[in-house]
Amino acid sequence: MRIEKVALIGLGLIGGSIGLAIAERLPEVATSGYDRDPEVRRRAGERGLAQTIAATAAEAVADADLVILCVPVGAMVQAAGAICEHLAPGAIVSDVGSSKASIAGTLHEFLPEHAVLIPAHPVAGTEQSGPDAGFAQLFHQRWCILTPPPGVRAEKLAALTRFWEALGAMVEVMDAAHHDRVLAVTSHIPHLIAYTIVGTASDLEEVTRSEVIKYSAGGFRDFTRIAASDPVMWRDVFLHNREAVLAMLDTFLVDLAMMREAIRSGDGETMQTLFTRTRDIRRQVIALGQDDARPDFGRADHG
Amino acid sequence: MRIEKVALIGLGLIGGSIGLAIAERLPEVATSGYDRDPEVRRRAGERGLAQTIAATAAEAVADADLVILCVPVGAMVQAAGAICEHLAPGAIVSDVGSSKASIAGTLHEFLPEHAVLIPAHPVAGTEQSGPDAGFAQLFHQRWCILTPPPGVRAEKLAALTRFWEALGAMVEVMDAAHHDRVLAVTSHIPHLIAYTIVGTASDLEEVTRSEVIKYSAGGFRDFTRIAASDPVMWRDVFLHNREAVLAMLDTFLVDLAMMREAIRSGDGETMQTLFTRTRDIRRQVIALGQDDARPDFGRADHG
Repeated sequence: MRIEKVALIGLGLIGGSIGLAIAERLPEVATSGYDRDPEVRRRAGERGLAQTIAATAAEAVADADLVILCVPVGAMVQAAGAICEHLAPGAIVSDVGSSKASIAGTLHEFLPEHAVLIPAHPVAGTEQSGPDAGFAQLFHQRWCILTPPPGVRAEKLAALTRFWEALGAMVEVMDAAHHDRVLAVTSHIPHLIAYTIVGTASDLEEVTRSEVIKYSAGGFRDFTRIAASDPVMWRDVFLHNREAVLAMLDTFLVDLAMMREAIRSGDGETMQTLFTRTRDIRRQVIALGQDDARPDFGRADHG
Repeated sequence: MRIEKVALIGLGLIGGSIGLAIAERLPEVATSGYDRDPEVRRRAGERGLAQTIAATAAEAVADADLVILCVPVGAMVQAAGAICEHLAPGAIVSDVGSSKASIAGTLHEFLPEHAVLIPAHPVAGTEQSGPDAGFAQLFHQRWCILTPPPGVRAEKLAALTRFWEALGAMVEVMDAAHHDRVLAVTSHIPHLIAYTIVGTASDLEEVTRSEVIKYSAGGFRDFTRIAASDPVMWRDVFLHNREAVLAMLDTFLVDLAMMREAIRSGDGETMQTLFTRTRDIRRQVIALGQDDARPDFGRADHG
């Protein structure tokens, strides 16, 4: 199977980046795009996020071999409803959502028999969102996780794998429930913690908000970046990956209580042991090409 | 008062950066340096972190108008003991520690009457440490907080202020207890959380360590950078700023419990309200020049 036309439903950071990456790396593939916000459609047309910007989702998916839903998890149902009667026979329907088990069930109900559902999650992004945020290199050297339902046709899975590899990503296949546990720890809990601590810091009585901002270079500023991510997208992630997030959060809270006790009792050895062990994880993240090796991510102020 | 010679006790990231910044921005000021690790002294000599590398701390502080202790908070007592009998009359003794109230008391006991104690904390750093980590621009556009004891001589305070401003920093004066509360939230709690979540993630049974590392670009990798900071320095921070850290941690835990309940009960509105509010803090951090405005800190993989 060859993918000759891709439809992008939703033209924010991820949808826009897919469109730009296709234009750069798969110039022979046609693209059509749709977003329910007219202003986003207008801007997407100006930036060339897709070759054709359609006036409706139904129009966008006509003749597409691959349809990718690039909307927040909570908007998937509406998006699937708008396209289900207009899909080309045998079209692959995929998505980019950060939680997979709940989406797979929902989409499965809405799609016609002939469509082939293969949920996907490119583990890539920035704190920015909207039609101006995307760029063609977003997926370069990042992992894209596919969570095909049992019995999916091999040639369809192979085609979607080749598509993501062509955009620069590395592809891994796993079941949806395992995906949701892995991402709970590598993405959802870090976002929850960052949002919470930034909220805590901005509500203190003894320390003013302007002090928090002034002295943020001590570590806090890193959390503000993550806590600037799209609010609706993240609300939906927590609503849809509740079980895995709560389980992982409770594991973290047990560990945090242990560190609290180490501080309270002056147990320097427990602290130093943990703080030494975590350095090694950083080395492995860099060795596997998943972060910038330069100090402080190579921030501009170290010029 | 003019500062003509600066002694740096400890030649890691901060001590080394001060030495390099003096060489670049205050070339008329002489520098001497000492580190208790002979290998660090050797490397400091090669990199020119100070004009003279002394064989003892006593030798390094001779004739210095300003002595800066650039050692972990827990090593301050030993460092102060080694220099106290060798300080020039009227020398300013300062430091760079991340907690201030406990240090001020300790150093005060050790210093001779004629020395002028002005604790300081440049809110700057990277996750790297040691004699190769320093660079001259580290303090540029960063805040340096001075916590002078009541009644300190104005000309000494002015001289230390001018010194840090010459290195590119902005100077603020506050009392030590307030400093410790501010830094607990902008630096110490973020580090504690990052160390803990990286530890949690590397010990999971259901998700392997290699999965955590592979999919770290979803947010986790940011925490690994902070959790790669110097273990001894951070152990000492938590031992010496215990009260403020525990108070701030407990405030954070209350907020985290609220978010946990919002997730458990499916309360999307509470989540979206918080996630929207925190975006504004990020904007202010960038507006005040305390972080890189580019998406993802301008990481290299978005080239």
